[in-house]
Amino acid sequence: MPVLHFWYEFASTYSYLTAMRIEDRCRAAGVELIWRPFLLGPIFRAQGWDTSPFNIYEAKGRYMWRDLERRAAAQGLPNIHRPDPFPQNGLLAARIATIGAGAGWGPDFTRAVYAAQFAQGQPISAPETLVALLNGLGLDGSQVLQSAQTDDSVKNQLRATTETAQSQGLFGAPSFTTEDGELFWGDDRLEDALNWALRVKN
Amino acid sequence: MPVLHFWYEFASTYSYLTAMRIEDRCRAAGVELIWRPFLLGPIFRAQGWDTSPFNIYEAKGRYMWRDLERRAAAQGLPNIHRPDPFPQNGLLAARIATIGAGAGWGPDFTRAVYAAQFAQGQPISAPETLVALLNGLGLDGSQVLQSAQTDDSVKNQLRATTETAQSQGLFGAPSFTTEDGELFWGDDRLEDALNWALRVKN
Repeated sequence: MPVLHFWYEFASTYSYLTAMRIEDRCRAAGVELIWRPFLLGPIFRAQGWDTSPFNIYEAKGRYMWRDLERRAAAQGLPNIHRPDPFPQNGLLAARIATIGAGAGWGPDFTRAVYAAQFAQGQPISAPETLVALLNGLGLDGSQVLQSAQTDDSVKNQLRATTETAQSQGLFGAPSFTTEDGELFWGDDRLEDALNWALRVKN
Repeated sequence: MPVLHFWYEFASTYSYLTAMRIEDRCRAAGVELIWRPFLLGPIFRAQGWDTSPFNIYEAKGRYMWRDLERRAAAQGLPNIHRPDPFPQNGLLAARIATIGAGAGWGPDFTRAVYAAQFAQGQPISAPETLVALLNGLGLDGSQVLQSAQTDDSVKNQLRATTETAQSQGLFGAPSFTTEDGELFWGDDRLEDALNWALRVKN
């Protein structure tokens, strides 16, 4: 089965759009999906940015919020609740998603975090938000939180994923990579990425 | 008939993809198309950039050239010939296109300039390139060139178009605006822009 890697950062607005639809799209296309939470912060800092480019470049930011609103509506998602502050710090959520990727509940947790952030305006950098979302999935939220905060192997794994992303040429999120190393950037390239994955013989 | 404004800069790689397909798309959709050549330079300078962001941000630039290659192929366009230097200075071409927009040959000239630049690698900042393209359209290239270089009303019109672009929130190219002031950015938003234009009652 062809494989598609989905690289996402929790603070990323367009990653939200992708996260809410990619599983259905991959299933329909017959493509195996691998969820790869990573951090954009270190990559942005290497480009000289200390916040989201949507904050640095005002006109671009204004456009992005409008475009996001239109595309969320077209996708049948609730009205966008703009996080304050933006971007939210997604480090803890990304560590938890790293645990979840190995345990099978990563995708459900990821969707729950995005919905809490962009549909309900909840502060996803707050541990209590994340614990409540984990509990809602039937997990022991406090225990998972503790692992995410203290387990060095989790921290190292997320760091390694971020370094892999950077070494594969990623500079934004969402991004998609195929087994033959082809890179696609942006929610609007999901279909191109799927088509590419299907062309690659596995 | 619904109206769509197509804002383009000659140096812009993704504007090339749009320029080669937008007329067919608008005709098929029953949307009136208005070609708006403008300059990105002043807008980029206001953001603190003195060259294309694809030169400033290396990973993003590397990705853009690959993405452009893939999308040109999917669109049935020739292999991309990467201009050297990039970006080309599109000022003179934009002045000529401003004349052509009023005279009816703007779209043909625009496509000819983009093909010369990105399919054949010709230097589009060179007056002789532009004169040859104009002659190829059955025009008096030298005469048009002279107007573009000396006519203050042409210079003022292009400057005004660029100021209008900026005041409407444009920050990149290609961009599309509808009669109700909705802005779309990027070749991959052409279909969204057309659908929006069709929703607006005229």
